[in-house]
Amino acid sequence: MPIRLGPNQYGKAENRVVRVYRDTPRHQIRDLNVSTALRGRFEDAHTSGDQRDVLPTDTQKNTVFAFAKKHGIASPEEFATLLADRFLEAAPAADGARIEVEEYTWDRIPVDGVEHDHAFVRSGQGVRTAVVTVDGRGDDRVVQVVSGISDLVVLKSTGSEFHGFLKDEYTTLPETTDRILATSLVVRWRYDTDAIAQGIDWTKSWDAIRALLLQRFAEIHSLALQQTLHGMGTAVLEQHPEVAEVKFSAPNKHHFLSDLSPFGMENPGEVFYAADRPYGLIEASVVRDEASEPGNAWLGTPGFC
Amino acid sequence: MPIRLGPNQYGKAENRVVRVYRDTPRHQIRDLNVSTALRGRFEDAHTSGDQRDVLPTDTQKNTVFAFAKKHGIASPEEFATLLADRFLEAAPAADGARIEVEEYTWDRIPVDGVEHDHAFVRSGQGVRTAVVTVDGRGDDRVVQVVSGISDLVVLKSTGSEFHGFLKDEYTTLPETTDRILATSLVVRWRYDTDAIAQGIDWTKSWDAIRALLLQRFAEIHSLALQQTLHGMGTAVLEQHPEVAEVKFSAPNKHHFLSDLSPFGMENPGEVFYAADRPYGLIEASVVRDEASEPGNAWLGTPGFC
Amino acid sequence: MPIRLGPNQYGKAENRVVRVYRDTPRHQIRDLNVSTALRGRFEDAHTSGDQRDVLPTDTQKNTVFAFAKKHGIASPEEFATLLADRFLEAAPAADGARIEVEEYTWDRIPVDGVEHDHAFVRSGQGVRTAVVTVDGRGDDRVVQVVSGISDLVVLKSTGSEFHGFLKDEYTTLPETTDRILATSLVVRWRYDTDAIAQGIDWTKSWDAIRALLLQRFAEIHSLALQQTLHGMGTAVLEQHPEVAEVKFSAPNKHHFLSDLSPFGMENPGEVFYAADRPYGLIEASVVRDEASEPGNAWLGTPGFC
Amino acid sequence: MPIRLGPNQYGKAENRVVRVYRDTPRHQIRDLNVSTALRGRFEDAHTSGDQRDVLPTDTQKNTVFAFAKKHGIASPEEFATLLADRFLEAAPAADGARIEVEEYTWDRIPVDGVEHDHAFVRSGQGVRTAVVTVDGRGDDRVVQVVSGISDLVVLKSTGSEFHGFLKDEYTTLPETTDRILATSLVVRWRYDTDAIAQGIDWTKSWDAIRALLLQRFAEIHSLALQQTLHGMGTAVLEQHPEVAEVKFSAPNKHHFLSDLSPFGMENPGEVFYAADRPYGLIEASVVRDEASEPGNAWLGTPGFC
Repeated sequence: MPIRLGPNQYGKAENRVVRVYRDTPRHQIRDLNVSTALRGRFEDAHTSGDQRDVLPTDTQKNTVFAFAKKHGIASPEEFATLLADRFLEAAPAADGARIEVEEYTWDRIPVDGVEHDHAFVRSGQGVRTAVVTVDGRGDDRVVQVVSGISDLVVLKSTGSEFHGFLKDEYTTLPETTDRILATSLVVRWRYDTDAIAQGIDWTKSWDAIRALLLQRFAEIHSLALQQTLHGMGTAVLEQHPEVAEVKFSAPNKHHFLSDLSPFGMENPGEVFYAADRPYGLIEASVVRDEASEPGNAWLGTPGFC
Repeated sequence: MPIRLGPNQYGKAENRVVRVYRDTPRHQIRDLNVSTALRGRFEDAHTSGDQRDVLPTDTQKNTVFAFAKKHGIASPEEFATLLADRFLEAAPAADGARIEVEEYTWDRIPVDGVEHDHAFVRSGQGVRTAVVTVDGRGDDRVVQVVSGISDLVVLKSTGSEFHGFLKDEYTTLPETTDRILATSLVVRWRYDTDAIAQGIDWTKSWDAIRALLLQRFAEIHSLALQQTLHGMGTAVLEQHPEVAEVKFSAPNKHHFLSDLSPFGMENPGEVFYAADRPYGLIEASVVRDEASEPGNAWLGTPGFC
Repeated sequence: MPIRLGPNQYGKAENRVVRVYRDTPRHQIRDLNVSTALRGRFEDAHTSGDQRDVLPTDTQKNTVFAFAKKHGIASPEEFATLLADRFLEAAPAADGARIEVEEYTWDRIPVDGVEHDHAFVRSGQGVRTAVVTVDGRGDDRVVQVVSGISDLVVLKSTGSEFHGFLKDEYTTLPETTDRILATSLVVRWRYDTDAIAQGIDWTKSWDAIRALLLQRFAEIHSLALQQTLHGMGTAVLEQHPEVAEVKFSAPNKHHFLSDLSPFGMENPGEVFYAADRPYGLIEASVVRDEASEPGNAWLGTPGFC
Repeated sequence: MPIRLGPNQYGKAENRVVRVYRDTPRHQIRDLNVSTALRGRFEDAHTSGDQRDVLPTDTQKNTVFAFAKKHGIASPEEFATLLADRFLEAAPAADGARIEVEEYTWDRIPVDGVEHDHAFVRSGQGVRTAVVTVDGRGDDRVVQVVSGISDLVVLKSTGSEFHGFLKDEYTTLPETTDRILATSLVVRWRYDTDAIAQGIDWTKSWDAIRALLLQRFAEIHSLALQQTLHGMGTAVLEQHPEVAEVKFSAPNKHHFLSDLSPFGMENPGEVFYAADRPYGLIEASVVRDEASEPGNAWLGTPGFC
């Protein structure tokens, strides 16, 4: 029958592993959500239910926790790479492994102005993400790393315009030279494969890119969310040669000026209604021309982020 | 500078439009969540903030509501196609439009055994989905339609085995010949472009495929979730020549046998703990060999669904 | 120091227990979310951390699963009562126990028109709830039962008016004689303690009340959501002498008429925008005059539901 | 018929109002979610649908936005009090008003080490809450204020024991002298009515209580979550004479030690699995003996928080 198995992958999603470093009284913690997935020659599992090539998702889960002990978690990127390599070693039928990590960050609780040794409060301001894809083994091994931030909610109370747009018979939006601009950012950036090979200080790079994204969001006088994102991404590529590509998914969280005229009040940009749905959704990317090829870097990650 | 704009799209997400047909006392309702997106030559909006080619997302929203009146909502697929064509007409810089629809279904409330004319209760058992992508205009116009179901939660209390799998030093999972199999299905199927051109009764096709997916889930003695999904997808391709491809994303919602031995009780498959995280995640697809090309059908939809 | 321990309770929330009855090939399943809580003389645990009177929440969890095997789950109400009594037996310092249950319902999957023996699809149309509170032991034992439904989403496309309301200088709402009325109901009804003592067929009562609530929602020509709820609750009290009291929490899920006049279109109740926030929130109750006293029936349940 | 209307209230929930102060280039923002509710003599609306006494929820919404302009938002507590008084003025049939506020906090984005004038990033570390209830008018007017924090997620990686608990035949939990203690706090504290009458610096009080709660969580060597909460609440009452009562709702977010023994590894408190459900749920309160009476302060707020 002219029907065949198409693309497929399988793994264990959302392993919530917390690693405590307690070698000194000043503890460190890493709090991760790890999702694993394998791709490869698993036809038999699909067509006949034969599992002989299938490393169970339960084993993948066990490996996540065992590796958190055995190797520690130096960074999401390094931990994910270790796991991907392990799965390719353990499962000969696998051609590639994709490890996705979310990291939740914690601040130390201040006690009389001193940060506590082992008491923490969960910080907001975004979740650190990493997707590591390893394809092949030995000389054919290719590692792709996509780091990012999600749930980074930002707002400008001025410095945002929107006008000069295309109009048709269904256009009612007034033009404005002053509005609130707000979004909940998902940003992902792919690292250059040469830079990966030479070694990257993942956390240093992540911290700097996060700060730069925020700074550019603040600085850019916005004529559209597209233009703001483009400026943010361009800055990352300019200042971070280790980055090949930046992708954004940004809901335009509309803040509509409340119409107070029925009550005899003016409202010069002071009172807004924060709407839920619908929302504008801007998906965009900037790419370095001579960037390394993405290969499977984005496989399994939604189109624009 | 060797930095360029990469792939991008923009639109208005999650327009919650409800259309009431009240031409007779027996009302009909269609309850939709519509997300629109345009792709094309919008570089200026990104690089300089010039909006002259940009049909605002607010206008896209207005169009959704106006078209619900003007054309009605015969089916998610037809409504989405009308919108996509409209946006390509209204925005000359657009090369393609992607319209995503979720439809929530309602049952009539029974009153003394008779279904009421205008009172409804929201039904469960899954959300109907459709993604229509139109690229180009006139002779170059290509329409791709991906229909589907999400949030279809199914469970088998027996008839599911899992054994014979690959083992390594991190494997602790016992083999089993009887377990609960449960998942919350996301299924999407792409229609053949020739079949689309010849005309499809979208709702008839959707109803039949939904029923078939459920029936095959029930009938197939499962040796793995992969094999169950493969059997379900294959049945769709066999019985529905209008379908080119079926994709699944299926969390394995683990039901662990509760260990009652500390209390001197046996538990022969009777009491289970329904776990949240982690969960197995199986993503798979079946494709008809001579299927039409997907083109941009899957663009912007997560990798395996 | 004049500071004392105030009201308190503790327990294990959201035990997800699934019970399969497989005595015959035609399986039955009960799918529950059980939350337990104990109240009583637990001062030492709070003030000094002394746990000698505290039956751990982990033990409460074990008991839920063991009782699902030992006693089965005849109904949420009976299962909750068994658990409450058990905890009062096991924890001498407890004065009362509160067991809250959500039950998710499943339909059999049809295969060629015949309902399958062991394959199910999760149904929608509301979650069955029960809160059982047992206070005291022996002759002082008081059992209160509050059953209910949540997430029951209903809509009328006509037969709903709203006018004649109080106006002040902040009123802009136009009066209407025809609107959509929609809500996601949380309903809870308390059973009369005498009726409980005489024995109630919990599932029969629940099924009948659910059907009656839906029927009255459909039948009542609405002048306000308050009046609809009042009519629904009154019908329950009239037809169900076993019920002492009915409470409702009902968000008015606004469906605003889409303004299509800028596009030269009329919109005679055909196209609506389903809004998220804000929403009206109506909380109300009806009580039988000679009803038994509620005692602790509502303790720990939000004010109006 | 011996059926009567029971307790009821109605209002507009979740008005998302954002107020920008732009009198100087250094903007300030207040980002609130405001829910209003009125109680009183509204029988006619329930029994006959007569709305003449009903101030529509739409008008309540308008008032929220108009008051954000007219009076500004000095603090959630002051804004809520203004609204409650207004509704009692506008709706003669109302006996009481309850205004619930959530406030989301924003940090300024740093640009080259300097905090930006009008660009913000949403901070985490909890949501500020306030519930103001005003009953009566003129000399009979009683104001109750309950402030609080929700979503404050805290964790201690050591300094937490749990042992010496009551055991029965369903107990399997091992005793421990070192575990992770983690919770997502909901804390609400009621202010003394005399202190309210004399005037309270709401934000100063809130900031100090929040810091104190965190500090005590860090400092207290925990023998049970109950004892930690009790210590936190007691500290608030000791140091804040303006507070009459503190209530906690605290899920015990279990972090289970991963069993690595099958892999020949020890796990001395280093690798944990963060579980979702079930979770312990501790609800507790501390009260000042000579505290003012709560009146309706807690009406409509879940039992223990």
